[in-house]
Formats: sequence, structure tokens, C-alpha cells
Amino acid sequence: MARPRKSEPTRLALLQAGMALLTLKGYHGTGIKQILDEVNVPKGSFYNFFDSKADFVAAIIRYYGEQISTEYQSLKADVAHLPELSQLQLIFKSKVARRQADSPTCACLIGAMSSEIAQSSQVCQQALVEIESQWLSQLSGQFMQAQLQLDVRQDMRPEQLARLFYNHWQGSLLHYQVCDDVQVIITALDDFLCLVATEQGVINLKQTRVAVQVTEPTKAIT
Amino acid sequence: MARPRKSEPTRLALLQAGMALLTLKGYHGTGIKQILDEVNVPKGSFYNFFDSKADFVAAIIRYYGEQISTEYQSLKADVAHLPELSQLQLIFKSKVARRQADSPTCACLIGAMSSEIAQSSQVCQQALVEIESQWLSQLSGQFMQAQLQLDVRQDMRPEQLARLFYNHWQGSLLHYQVCDDVQVIITALDDFLCLVATEQGVINLKQTRVAVQVTEPTKAIT
Repeated sequence: MARPRKSEPTRLALLQAGMALLTLKGYHGTGIKQILDEVNVPKGSFYNFFDSKADFVAAIIRYYGEQISTEYQSLKADVAHLPELSQLQLIFKSKVARRQADSPTCACLIGAMSSEIAQSSQVCQQALVEIESQWLSQLSGQFMQAQLQLDVRQDMRPEQLARLFYNHWQGSLLHYQVCDDVQVIITALDDFLCLVATEQGVINLKQTRVAVQVTEPTKAIT
Repeated sequence: MARPRKSEPTRLALLQAGMALLTLKGYHGTGIKQILDEVNVPKGSFYNFFDSKADFVAAIIRYYGEQISTEYQSLKADVAHLPELSQLQLIFKSKVARRQADSPTCACLIGAMSSEIAQSSQVCQQALVEIESQWLSQLSGQFMQAQLQLDVRQDMRPEQLARLFYNHWQGSLLHYQVCDDVQVIITALDDFLCLVATEQGVINLKQTRVAVQVTEPTKAIT
């Protein structure tokens, strides 16, 4: 049901506060009351916006999905002059650097909700399916272009490569959470890209790494 | 501190009941009382075994780690006559088939706890580090042998390949949880192995798939 226009700022505040807490504390570790207190919204009002906690979390998942899609487009525009595979490398490194600078964790809300709630909440599962589908579509496009540029192996479809990349990315974020070292995400990203790159692709990736280190020497993650 | 020998069956019952619930409901979704009721243990006794919920979960993680390590050795013995890369394929397919037959979910406790609790509980994080280290060591050995058999690319160290495999495996389990389709784990496994296999390795993997389909036609997952 569409919400009254005047309520949008409150709804947005709830989504943003919920997003931050969910990523840190998970579904069951996050209380609605804590979010309401943070945003200064009475409990009754909450149910004007969302039917249930699961409905709220599904909305947060979709909101988070919009955020990362917008971020992806913006980061991609920054590196549009580079080959597609090198773009992918830099986009994901920049994502990590941003999380490291702005958030208490580099963990991914999609991964966290996939693990904790997907199989027990249909409404959250549906939101996750939608967001992953959008993500995979963007990644597939990127791999298709990288194949046309001969930087990526041709023996798999772009959709397969995108899924492999995304699975591995989510797994590397779990590894980061276990060892609390953001560098493992970067190392894993570089190693994975070498698995899918052609010889030419590997050379381009190395050149990009050198170029980024030269032009951004103070960046924590390169 | 070592526990009295006579208490071991109760401790084991607590670990087993906790393991099942944790995998299904996560850390915050699992109440100690629920586990105690299931095993018929009074609350006071619980603290004879474990100092806290986190301490209990850390013990469950280690117990789970022992289980999967034993399972791995047993499954490996069943396929010891095959090339190492084909072994890996069959071991992990068998793991999935077993979970599908025995458990309400194929999700992995290590992945679930990595996502939900690793960064907020030092004692759980330490248990996860230990278990992952054991796992990675086993996988590295498998990849080293597969490289010696020329079935796996030589441009990466076995430790790198093991980490890539494990990251991807954990990510594929998240994908399974989002779409509730066990087949995505199998497809992802096959696709990943093609990324690391040499031409000879790919041929061996295909031959193994055909052989397993011929000898085990009724198996749900091949």
C-alpha cells in the first residue's frame, strides 16, 4: 500500500536506522524498540508503515539493494575509462574502502539476512531474491563486456561468471568477519579475478593495480 | 577446565541439541532454555558445563568442526580410488546429499556463526578461526595432490585455491538459502571446479560425473 507522502522522511529514517542495526546485530539481535527509540517514533506509528518485523526487514533489504545499486553505478562511472574487468576490481575495492571508512563493519546485509532469515521468512526471502537478481544482472553485464574485451575466459556464460563472482564475494566477507582483517577481502578479490581472467586480463589487472597505487598512494586499501 | 567423565553424555546431548537449533535459528534466535528443555537439563547444570551462551556456542562450533572433519575423512576414503579433484567434487556432493536427507536445512553452522556472531564474540570468533584453519589445511592438501596429478592449474598455491574454494562454497550455501533450491549448490560446485581445473582435470571431472550417474541412478543429487 502506498504511504502518504508526508510520512516518507520518517519511513526513510526507520529504514536507515534499521539497516545499520541489522548489519551489526542481525535479525534476531535487532529489536524494533531500539530502532524506534533511535528515530524517536512511537510503536503505534511503526505499524502505519510496516505490517510486521519481517515486512520491515524486507523493506530494508530492498532499500539496501537500491543503495548498493546506486553506489555501483557511481563507482563504475568513476572508472569508465578502464577495461571492464579492471573496473570490477576497482569498484569492489572502493566498496570495501568506503565501508571501512564509514561503517563499524564491512559485512554485507544481504549475506547476513540470507544466512539468518531467508529460509524462515518468505517475505524477506522474496526481497533477497529480487535484490540478488538485480545484482547478478549488473554483474553479468560487466562480465559480458569483459569477455568482449577478451579479458575474461570464454568457456562460461556471463551469468555463470557473475554467480561465481558473487558467491565468492559473499564467502570472502564471511572470512573477513572471522578474522577481522579487511585485507582478506582484497586478496580474495584479486585471486578470484585471476581465476577468470585471460592472460591479457591478468596483465590489465596488474597495470590497473600499479596505476591506482601510483595515483592514490595514501589510500588504505589498494 | 576438564569436566567429570560421568557428565560427558549430558554435555554431548547439549552440544547436539544446540548444534541443530543454532543452524536453524541462529545465535540470537536460539534460547538456552529451549535447548535445556529438549535435553531435560536444569539451568543450574548448564553452568557446570559452560560459562556463558557464547562459551557454549564456541564449544558447539568446535564440535561441529570435529563432525565435518570426520565426515570429510570418511567420504574421502569412499572415493580414494579417484583423482583428487574428482574426489573433491564427490565429497562435497555427498555432503549436500547427506544434509538433504538428514537435516531440515543444508545451511552451514560455520557460515551462520561467521555472519552473525564472529565480530561480536571473541570466544566464538576464536573457535571459528580454529575450525576454518583445520578445514583449509585439509582442502589445501587436496588441492596440492590435484596439482601433482596435473588436474588443477599451477599458477596458484594450494592454500590460495583452498581459500577460493571455501569462500565460494560458503557463498553458494547462502545462495541456496535465498532460493531454497539445493541444486544451485551443485551447479556452483561444478562451475567453480571448472575454473580451477586444467583441460585434463575437466575431462576427469566429466568422467566422474558420468560414472557416478551410472552407478548411482537413484541418488537425488549427482
